[in-house]
Amino acid sequence: MNLTNYMKERIATFNEKLLAYLNPLSIPPLLKQSMIYSIEAGGKRIRPILVMASFESFQKDFEKTIATAAALEMIHTYSLIHDDLPAMDDDDYRRGKLTNHKMFDEATAILAGDALLTYAFELISKDSNLSSEEKVYTINKLARASGPEGMIAGQVLDIAAEEKRISLKELIEIHSKKTGALITFSVHIGAYLAGASEEQLKYLDEYSYNLGLLFQVQDDILDVIGDAEKLGKPVGSDLDNEKSTYPSILGLEKAISYRDEYAKNALLALKDAGINNSYLKALVEYIAHREH
Amino acid sequence: MNLTNYMKERIATFNEKLLAYLNPLSIPPLLKQSMIYSIEAGGKRIRPILVMASFESFQKDFEKTIATAAALEMIHTYSLIHDDLPAMDDDDYRRGKLTNHKMFDEATAILAGDALLTYAFELISKDSNLSSEEKVYTINKLARASGPEGMIAGQVLDIAAEEKRISLKELIEIHSKKTGALITFSVHIGAYLAGASEEQLKYLDEYSYNLGLLFQVQDDILDVIGDAEKLGKPVGSDLDNEKSTYPSILGLEKAISYRDEYAKNALLALKDAGINNSYLKALVEYIAHREH
Repeated sequence: MNLTNYMKERIATFNEKLLAYLNPLSIPPLLKQSMIYSIEAGGKRIRPILVMASFESFQKDFEKTIATAAALEMIHTYSLIHDDLPAMDDDDYRRGKLTNHKMFDEATAILAGDALLTYAFELISKDSNLSSEEKVYTINKLARASGPEGMIAGQVLDIAAEEKRISLKELIEIHSKKTGALITFSVHIGAYLAGASEEQLKYLDEYSYNLGLLFQVQDDILDVIGDAEKLGKPVGSDLDNEKSTYPSILGLEKAISYRDEYAKNALLALKDAGINNSYLKALVEYIAHREH
Repeated sequence: MNLTNYMKERIATFNEKLLAYLNPLSIPPLLKQSMIYSIEAGGKRIRPILVMASFESFQKDFEKTIATAAALEMIHTYSLIHDDLPAMDDDDYRRGKLTNHKMFDEATAILAGDALLTYAFELISKDSNLSSEEKVYTINKLARASGPEGMIAGQVLDIAAEEKRISLKELIEIHSKKTGALITFSVHIGAYLAGASEEQLKYLDEYSYNLGLLFQVQDDILDVIGDAEKLGKPVGSDLDNEKSTYPSILGLEKAISYRDEYAKNALLALKDAGINNSYLKALVEYIAHREH
């Protein structure tokens, strides 16, 4: 099965389960609508795919990962809802749809975000597919990745860096926390739940560190040379916003060579982990050469 | 030891540990300042006291409860930070100090709240005093109490009820979720960690349901007949804001009889749980007759 079909199949299964976790909640209708609105606003489900593909590099029955992947996607979604708020990035649209606070209102958006974040931990704590030890490990890693030393630190640093010239080192720190921490969690937890060794986990962390930066540098590159129609958003917005990016710091050519370097490093780390036949490999190509 | 001295001692120990969990965090200074600012803004630490007093109704070594009590206080604090935001209650002051978004800014306040919420779960997951089973149970109960079916539902319902006449039944639903859920968690988890039986836990849930409502009705009563100086805030603000309260729905006299009823029920439930010599008993009197 090629990567595209694999992703299509897994995403279909995943989306169904994701809604099945939210629909039965006995909560005020407005709150549920707001949570589900942003959960359904789509996205590529890259993180859940990474969890499943990482698990499937070792074992077959990926059902074991679904609740964890859903919790992760809820946390990713909450972070987008809060990032879009007027006090933060003040965005009216995301992927062509109204942002949560525009569709509902600010109070509802803040609370829907809080609810998705909190419910994510409940979901893992009651997942009958995991042992108590696995739950504790998963919750610990997820909280660290998305908490004050992980994703939230990245967001704070990103806000502080706005309209300021920053170094490549600072840019990498922001990305490795703001988006990288959850990407690393995705790959790590999939492999952990499948019984990977400590050493394999270490190499996979290296893989996903590079994959996260690869994802970001390609994002930056597409904002310079991408096709607005394929992207579904205007290009050149980083330049207009005076945002620090790989191309703005390094120039386009060097940004592209960084991209290729990250891809190479990711593939090397995968090899070091002893993983050959895995969608994790195809995902490197997919992310490096995606057009949207 | 009388209740006042007991609370003073426990709060001193607790506050020290609480800061010791936050200070070592390796995070952007602004984020840490903002988190610690609201954690230190004080409050009566009623919830941690309930955890410890409940535990100590069964066992001595309350150290076992500290990380859980700290996580709980972090979640309580995050909820206050988000509730005070302009999009929610829009408050500039809390207990005589600037609210978080007034001291810092809105983006920082939102993120500090998110960080306290997320870190609370990390804290429990790494608490070396608990077994994996205890961690999972505690995380599950805390997420449920503070999540979309608990505290967050209460906040959504509270916002929807603003400037509207609601029934006593609706008022009770709001309070039992918005503040009651965390109070019930406090008592429940303290007893659970001390090895209380299922039946005792059931009666203690009844105790804390009544205690939570008792807390609220006394709050409402103080807003009518309290002493502004002792309260540290003006009285009569509920009336000015056309807020639904026990006195506004029932009249003052009947509100007082409800208060006495809740106190009586709490004490009865405690007796049914077989708990006689406990600060949980003194806390009923303390809350029913507090002047601030």
